[in-house]
Amino acid sequence: MEQFLQEAKSASRVLSLISGHDKNRILREMANALRANTMNLIEANALDMSDADKNKLSSALKDRLLLDEKRIDAMAVAIEEIAALKEPVGRVIDGWVTEDGLKIEKVSIPIGVIGIIYESRPNVTSDTAALCFKSSNVCVLKGGKEAENSNIAIAKILQATLEKNNLPKALISLIPDSSREGVAKLIKMDKYVDLIIPRGGAGLIKYVCDNATVSVVKHDKGQCHTYIDKDAKLDNAIAIAINAKVQRPGVCNAMETLLVDSAIAQEALPLLKTEFDKAHTQLKGCSNTQNIIDVPHATDEDYDTEYLANILNIKVVEGVDGAIEHIVRFTSGHSEAIITENITAAEKFLNSIDAAVVYVNASTRFTDGGAFGFGAEVGISTNKLHARGPMGIEGLTTYKFKVYGSGQTR
Amino acid sequence: MEQFLQEAKSASRVLSLISGHDKNRILREMANALRANTMNLIEANALDMSDADKNKLSSALKDRLLLDEKRIDAMAVAIEEIAALKEPVGRVIDGWVTEDGLKIEKVSIPIGVIGIIYESRPNVTSDTAALCFKSSNVCVLKGGKEAENSNIAIAKILQATLEKNNLPKALISLIPDSSREGVAKLIKMDKYVDLIIPRGGAGLIKYVCDNATVSVVKHDKGQCHTYIDKDAKLDNAIAIAINAKVQRPGVCNAMETLLVDSAIAQEALPLLKTEFDKAHTQLKGCSNTQNIIDVPHATDEDYDTEYLANILNIKVVEGVDGAIEHIVRFTSGHSEAIITENITAAEKFLNSIDAAVVYVNASTRFTDGGAFGFGAEVGISTNKLHARGPMGIEGLTTYKFKVYGSGQTR
Repeated sequence: MEQFLQEAKSASRVLSLISGHDKNRILREMANALRANTMNLIEANALDMSDADKNKLSSALKDRLLLDEKRIDAMAVAIEEIAALKEPVGRVIDGWVTEDGLKIEKVSIPIGVIGIIYESRPNVTSDTAALCFKSSNVCVLKGGKEAENSNIAIAKILQATLEKNNLPKALISLIPDSSREGVAKLIKMDKYVDLIIPRGGAGLIKYVCDNATVSVVKHDKGQCHTYIDKDAKLDNAIAIAINAKVQRPGVCNAMETLLVDSAIAQEALPLLKTEFDKAHTQLKGCSNTQNIIDVPHATDEDYDTEYLANILNIKVVEGVDGAIEHIVRFTSGHSEAIITENITAAEKFLNSIDAAVVYVNASTRFTDGGAFGFGAEVGISTNKLHARGPMGIEGLTTYKFKVYGSGQTR
Repeated sequence: MEQFLQEAKSASRVLSLISGHDKNRILREMANALRANTMNLIEANALDMSDADKNKLSSALKDRLLLDEKRIDAMAVAIEEIAALKEPVGRVIDGWVTEDGLKIEKVSIPIGVIGIIYESRPNVTSDTAALCFKSSNVCVLKGGKEAENSNIAIAKILQATLEKNNLPKALISLIPDSSREGVAKLIKMDKYVDLIIPRGGAGLIKYVCDNATVSVVKHDKGQCHTYIDKDAKLDNAIAIAINAKVQRPGVCNAMETLLVDSAIAQEALPLLKTEFDKAHTQLKGCSNTQNIIDVPHATDEDYDTEYLANILNIKVVEGVDGAIEHIVRFTSGHSEAIITENITAAEKFLNSIDAAVVYVNASTRFTDGGAFGFGAEVGISTNKLHARGPMGIEGLTTYKFKVYGSGQTR
């Protein structure tokens, strides 16, 4: 493992010598190579699908795993879209002249070697490899065991394109030892690895955060709330609440708990129940909710659970202060929304809640690189530092200061 | 410890309610309180000084520890300067409207609870407390054992000012258990602590980085190089080299190794030796250096040593590529300089070297918050992410996205 990462680290120096023009051409070649190898990819994927049958994976998981012609083309299109992004390296972020006459430029640079740990969907392999290559980073990928054959096939195609362009294949590679022990080693190799991005279950993320000596940007759970204030437009509120829960319940930016101002609970809760019943949402509620609509009881454990399913807690709270109090206790710092027409309530909510994204009068489902206009998304960070919330390709860069003098001493 | 940090965490919410005007007034009151308590501080410091005698601390360390009337006034002035800084919280860093009509604002916010681990100089206690308060962060301070009485006295004065203003003293506090075990607990309390800043010896920093589950911004060693290219103005080169080594050898931005282009070594090395001899610098050199001037041999271990003293390695290298090769091997990523009039050589150096600050034709001694014009300095980060190089008060903030909608759903 150490020698492998040493090679990855030294390969990273090659990347500073490739022009943006060449990087984009090579990315487009990678996209075409994926298309040209559609049959090979489908064959490799078939091995994973048959293992999935043997291991009795759920149909949802099998759907995430499956590669067909259409999905492989989508992977190629995604790489082409990444090629079309603005060059992320070498941007002058800031610049000034000091009192000593030094010209200082703060310039974006690659992070270096990035380890990415993820699960199931094979397209993540090509997406993250392309994002890292575009931002001149070396990537070391650790995909899910269940997608191993597909991931190996994808990596081989991308590596063949690198080699055709006289570039070391170490620029894009799968971790040589994908066992728990391999991951344990990877996250402690701060001599060679500059960043670890874990995407996956809570267990994996906790393990990585507790044990890594390398910096970590985690993609952790979304315990998202929507608060309907007494000054909300009720139509808006209902439409946003339904959207935040129902449109795609299995993702991190979906709502898990709906907070309703006690001043309008009597009126709002029956209307909300009617709409959520139509969407087959399984509702739970606090005792005040239960006094108004007929739902089972929501416990503190429920308020702390990311359902990733069409299940919703409802709680009646005393105005915006009550909402803030509940959210401060249960937030995972992902996305939180208030629905109100009142400026004071909205600003109090936006300023008091410490989350990556805070909304007024919109669905938490917008927490997404695409919806934010970032073009491509590395993921949604629940870190407090470096990258927070939707993480575009900018999140794969850091900076250095270039200082131009003319003989200055102190 | 857990209850103590829990209090620190909940105290942090109070900070979002204080106006910038009030923060600055309270900071100025703290400065005046330090001045008014000069005699108490000198008494407390005398206890540390007498312990220092008993423990036979070096005179350099004792000098760092000493508080007198002038130094206490300087601490007060530093707080007043921090009060005068621009408000770091609530800055709109970026903003745009999405295709869905959502107005997004990226806004600077405090990090939350910051643990700072440092050594000897008592003024660090008041400086960091003031920087954290100004940026609406709670600080948990762990100073050096040798300055314990001074630090307790300073913290008490600052806390008394907080309480006079009806603020919880948990906003500024010393760690209750300052033993190794106390530190071990602190760096694992990611539930309550958002950032750890260790400043101190290599052992401490390695221990914190290896064991923390909280994010770390480290202030580690500076293995800084200066490379004199064949196209350098030799007068500039000598003045910069002398300055980088001699002006203050005990700090992290001082030069440890001087690289000289073989094309000018014959001419430059005797001139350099004459000047360094005047400054009583102890020189070591590679065998090519030894062929030209009379100095003892520099080993690979020497090239890897941060002397923090008036000692310098000299190595003859083959042009800018040779310089880059040596620096890539030994750099600590702090500050690296090239002296040349040649644009191609300068840009190659600036782009190839991965360090927080890369210089052309200036002394590495400028890597400093003050010299960069940041007004006040948290320290000099050797992190690759979050804050890199001179770390101003901005480094004590992170950001969130505020999203303003009008009923948008996906």
